[in-house]
Amino acid sequence: MPVDPEAPIEVTAYNWVPPLAVGLVKDMRVRWALEEIELPYRERLLGGAGGEKSAGHIADQPFGQVPVYKEAGLTLFESGAILIHLGEKDERLLPHDPNFRARAIGWMIAALNSVEPFTQMLFMMGFVGAGRDWQEEAKDAVRPFAEMRLAQLSGALGEKEWLEDSFTIGDLVMIDVLRAAREPGLVAAHPNLVTYVERGTTRPAFKAAMDAQLAVFERNEPVTA
Amino acid sequence: MPVDPEAPIEVTAYNWVPPLAVGLVKDMRVRWALEEIELPYRERLLGGAGGEKSAGHIADQPFGQVPVYKEAGLTLFESGAILIHLGEKDERLLPHDPNFRARAIGWMIAALNSVEPFTQMLFMMGFVGAGRDWQEEAKDAVRPFAEMRLAQLSGALGEKEWLEDSFTIGDLVMIDVLRAAREPGLVAAHPNLVTYVERGTTRPAFKAAMDAQLAVFERNEPVTA
Repeated sequence: MPVDPEAPIEVTAYNWVPPLAVGLVKDMRVRWALEEIELPYRERLLGGAGGEKSAGHIADQPFGQVPVYKEAGLTLFESGAILIHLGEKDERLLPHDPNFRARAIGWMIAALNSVEPFTQMLFMMGFVGAGRDWQEEAKDAVRPFAEMRLAQLSGALGEKEWLEDSFTIGDLVMIDVLRAAREPGLVAAHPNLVTYVERGTTRPAFKAAMDAQLAVFERNEPVTA
Repeated sequence: MPVDPEAPIEVTAYNWVPPLAVGLVKDMRVRWALEEIELPYRERLLGGAGGEKSAGHIADQPFGQVPVYKEAGLTLFESGAILIHLGEKDERLLPHDPNFRARAIGWMIAALNSVEPFTQMLFMMGFVGAGRDWQEEAKDAVRPFAEMRLAQLSGALGEKEWLEDSFTIGDLVMIDVLRAAREPGLVAAHPNLVTYVERGTTRPAFKAAMDAQLAVFERNEPVTA
C-alpha cells in the first residue's frame, strides 16, 4: 500500500476539489506511477481554497499547482518530469535500453505537447465560453485540431497493446490525457483508443491511485447545510 | 559548422514555410541544441505542401510534423524528447548531477505543458477566430490564463540569469516558447522575461540555428509571377 505517512517520498495533492475535477487532478499521474513500482509515498495535502497560492507552495511549484514531489535533496514539479525521475528508478516505467527509453519519453512528450493542448483547448472553449453566444462556434473552430491529433494517435497505435513494446510512462500520460478528454465522441470515434484507455485504467495500479485520490476528497468533503 | 551532409545525425525540417511560421518551426529547438554542443547534423527537407503527410513521414512522425531526429538505431520525434536525448550526450545542455538534471527537465516540461498551451491558445483564438465577430471576446476570455502563467514564470525567474544555475534545455525551450508568444504586451509586461529572451536569442548557437533554418527557406522560396 504506497500511501504511508512515514515514507521518505512526499507527493503534494489537494485535500478537496469541486466535482468537475474529481479524479482528474494531476497528482493522479504520479500516484499511478508510484503504484506501478510499489514505491511508498506520503501525502501533503493543500487545504482550503487558495492554499495553493501560499508563498511556501509557490517556492516549490511556481504555477501554484499540484503535484510537487519531494525526496531527500530534491523538490520537483511538473508531473512529466516527476515521471521521468521515477522511471529512472524502475524499468517497469521506463526501460533502460536507451533507444526504447528515448521513444517512451517521446510518447510522453507527445501526450503533453501534441495531444493535451488540443483536447484541453476544446474543453476550455466550453469552460470560458459558458453562457456566451459564441461558445459553440468557438468549439467547432477548435474541434478539428483535437480530432486530427486523436485520429493520428489512433493510426499510430493501430492494434498494438501499448505505444511501444511494453507499458511505459508514455502510455501512462497518454491514457490520462485521453480519459480527461470528455468531449462527447472525441475519443469514442476511435475504438482502439477506447480499448487502450480501458487497458490502462483497469490496471491495478491505476485503480489503487484513483482510490487514494478519491479517499482524500471524501474525508475532506465540505459540509453543506 | 553543424550542418554537414555527411553527418550521422539527421534532422527533418521543411524546405519552405509561409512568412507567419518563418523562424518558428520546431526544428529550431533541435538545431539550437545541436549548435550548443557543436554536434554536426544533416538536414532532410520535406518538400512541397502536404509532403509531411506521406506514409513514410507518418511512420517516423505520427502527427505529420517536424522535426524527426535520426541516428544509428534510433528514430525519435517530439522536440522535447530529442532535447533530453541530446542532453544526455553533453552536460552543456543537461547537467549530470541527478537533482539539477531533474529540475532542468522540469522546466522544459513546464515550457511545453504549463506555458506553451496557454500562449498557443491565445494565438489560436486569433487564428481560428479570424474574421469572426467573436474573435476579440474569445481572445479576452483566454488571455488571463496566458498572462497568469507568464506572471508566475516572471516571479520564478526573478533576477536570475537562467531558471537554474546554468543554461539548460529548460531555458532553451522556455525561451523558444516565449519568443513565439507574439501577442502584443504579453511578454513585454515582464522586463525580466524580455531580458531573458534576449539573453537566449543572442547566444551564438541560437543565431547559427536561426541562420540555418532561414537559409533553407531562402533557397526554396517559391517563385511568384
